[in-house]
Amino acid sequence: MKEYVVPTPKRRRGRPPAGESNTRERILYAAIDEFGEAGYDGATMRAIAARADVDAALVHHYFGTKADLFGEAVGAPMRPDVALPEILAGPQSEVGERIIRYLLESWDKPEVQRRGVALMRTALGNRLTTPLLAGFLSREVIGRVSGTLDSDDAQLRASLVASQIAGLIVARYVIKLPALSHASIDELVERVAPTVQRYLHG
Amino acid sequence: MKEYVVPTPKRRRGRPPAGESNTRERILYAAIDEFGEAGYDGATMRAIAARADVDAALVHHYFGTKADLFGEAVGAPMRPDVALPEILAGPQSEVGERIIRYLLESWDKPEVQRRGVALMRTALGNRLTTPLLAGFLSREVIGRVSGTLDSDDAQLRASLVASQIAGLIVARYVIKLPALSHASIDELVERVAPTVQRYLHG
Repeated sequence: MKEYVVPTPKRRRGRPPAGESNTRERILYAAIDEFGEAGYDGATMRAIAARADVDAALVHHYFGTKADLFGEAVGAPMRPDVALPEILAGPQSEVGERIIRYLLESWDKPEVQRRGVALMRTALGNRLTTPLLAGFLSREVIGRVSGTLDSDDAQLRASLVASQIAGLIVARYVIKLPALSHASIDELVERVAPTVQRYLHG
Repeated sequence: MKEYVVPTPKRRRGRPPAGESNTRERILYAAIDEFGEAGYDGATMRAIAARADVDAALVHHYFGTKADLFGEAVGAPMRPDVALPEILAGPQSEVGERIIRYLLESWDKPEVQRRGVALMRTALGNRLTTPLLAGFLSREVIGRVSGTLDSDDAQLRASLVASQIAGLIVARYVIKLPALSHASIDELVERVAPTVQRYLHG
């Protein structure tokens, strides 16, 4: 069971004041509960602060943005939302290549892969956690990508990119189809980058 | 708990002989155990028959091929391996379109979608069942597709198609990204079929 240390005056008198790591942990547990109940879009920093019985400014102080806090709460092994601005800012004609190379170079790292696969299994295997993944992806990844596109179908274009990326992760790292597991990053970039490029700008 | 009715002479004397539905069910349970322990490639009809204490010919009589029996054992809502020969036999220039249209028309049916999503969640969420899905896909789907390609990289090409298909299923039916859930079959065929076509023949 999770234990929230509520800093009432009485308990404070009886033991040393809760330290920084304790407050940080309490906010993290509050965030896990809030994200789980309200979903990614529905969760607010204010509600998380209220659950943890701290000021909202303290939540920002410890964790930064809502996306940062979410990343900590789910133990995200990589932060596509943080990497995306730079990836999207480069030459448009090579954005597909940059996206796929970033994806594969990140996931090929053993630690990212281990935690990433565990996170994918949890998010896809459980009907309660799937919407949480969907909410984060929609807001922080698909939203950012579609925001750079000047077309009516920007959401669909960005979502198609997400579908190929999700499929590549599932096929190479979760199901581990032999031909995909054994392919080099360069080989996969060569084959898959044009797909992403076409979905975005074709 | 599963109950195997073992037809020993003694028990036969005491109760009516096991009927057809009983034998069929016993084979099905034996198949579930055998697939679970040996994986798709490792499981043999002979071993399944031995587990069920019946002749191998009876397994074929009730269930057909190993792929048929696997489909029954996992409650597969569609049979890509059965549909593929016809899909692959048509004009090569439109094979991408036929594959994506078949996929979406199948999964858009509520009953297929309901069972398909449950199966995907189980197969991806559990590290014990993932290899079973991988084995079936590799042998019966990727193997069939790559068998029609006359190139050294046929396995990689077919596996890339599998990655886009897996991603489309995950994004449209499991995660339900809004732009993909709301898109029509025709719209998605128009966007995704060229990807499949290029992976196979580009």
